[in-house]
Amino acid sequence: MTDSLRTGRTEIHRLPARGAHDRDTIHAILDEGMICHIGFIFEGSPFVIPTSYGREGERLLIHGSAASRMLRALSAGAEACITVSLIDGLVLARSAFHHSMNYRSVVLLAKGTLIEEYEAKMEALRAITERLIPGRWNSVRKPTTQEMKGTSVISFPIAEASAKLRVGPPKDDVEDYALPIWAGVLPLSLTPAAPIADDRNLSGVEVPDYIRNYKR
Amino acid sequence: MTDSLRTGRTEIHRLPARGAHDRDTIHAILDEGMICHIGFIFEGSPFVIPTSYGREGERLLIHGSAASRMLRALSAGAEACITVSLIDGLVLARSAFHHSMNYRSVVLLAKGTLIEEYEAKMEALRAITERLIPGRWNSVRKPTTQEMKGTSVISFPIAEASAKLRVGPPKDDVEDYALPIWAGVLPLSLTPAAPIADDRNLSGVEVPDYIRNYKR
Repeated sequence: MTDSLRTGRTEIHRLPARGAHDRDTIHAILDEGMICHIGFIFEGSPFVIPTSYGREGERLLIHGSAASRMLRALSAGAEACITVSLIDGLVLARSAFHHSMNYRSVVLLAKGTLIEEYEAKMEALRAITERLIPGRWNSVRKPTTQEMKGTSVISFPIAEASAKLRVGPPKDDVEDYALPIWAGVLPLSLTPAAPIADDRNLSGVEVPDYIRNYKR
Repeated sequence: MTDSLRTGRTEIHRLPARGAHDRDTIHAILDEGMICHIGFIFEGSPFVIPTSYGREGERLLIHGSAASRMLRALSAGAEACITVSLIDGLVLARSAFHHSMNYRSVVLLAKGTLIEEYEAKMEALRAITERLIPGRWNSVRKPTTQEMKGTSVISFPIAEASAKLRVGPPKDDVEDYALPIWAGVLPLSLTPAAPIADDRNLSGVEVPDYIRNYKR
């Protein structure tokens, strides 16, 4: 198994210095993201739908209603492009042209396979939940046979992928550094606020630590 | 002009109660997003690429290197699906099955047109910058003729689109409300941290108010 997920189709053409194809970089970005954007072709047109996901080793996992158009298309083996993007900040240069964002993104090309075996499917649902909210799975009421039936889980091999990243301060043209314009980075991150308890929680049920201390 | 951007292709099939097609809802989501995910077909395969964007009235605007594969494909009139997703929180139910996210998303189907006229192109670049960082355009060094030449700007009509939203607390099955499991929402939002000034800023150049007080 190679550590590079580069292929002709995942070559970075624009600003290749920002590109990466190593497994560790790609996994780290996938593990931090909350949602992915899945592109697929339906009746000849491209569609892009956001959804949550999980990762287990070299597989990316999604789930959804078995009746959904996207899940049905992907179950049938339609080609997918799955993109995860993290926004890390606004990059303010002295020139309009060199404004940018700091970001980390992964583009994964893959065809999915339906996970049908009951235990494997349950394990995939556990992985999706635990990746988003570590500690949650063991606290909740598990899926019933009926709920499992209505849910499709699809596994995509993480084998053909690229990452693209921008980090650090703005880069301006040499002569622009003489301009009295504020330049720098405004960091941005997806940040939790105080948890909002459901009105119907039983009395005495406390916010669990994995929510109180939640961070990506 | 109708106020609905619904067509057969933007009908919401899954959970239609979460769907919306009115212009105001769609514009509001587009105005809050930082990046969009653009889906297009290249050599028969779907690709999804994140990028920043602007909105002016009924047009969504993107820009990028004139040499980029995506920009060239979209300039040539390739069909695009442009999706903007805002994550508002994790929804923790008592059952694994009813876990969800609060989110707002827009899916826009459109074909783009290259903006070639110089003043219109400059105005589009201003709109993209000002939407992301209101107040910035007038503070910075404007694009040169050379920079303009290397940049493509594409305009997409906002005419065929849908929004999908989830808000509020978890919804559990009736019998699960008796379980002593903490349920609720963990709000999430893209939040700025303290601005990081570039090392090469001239002395006496202060952080502008539109950065100090930045919020989406």
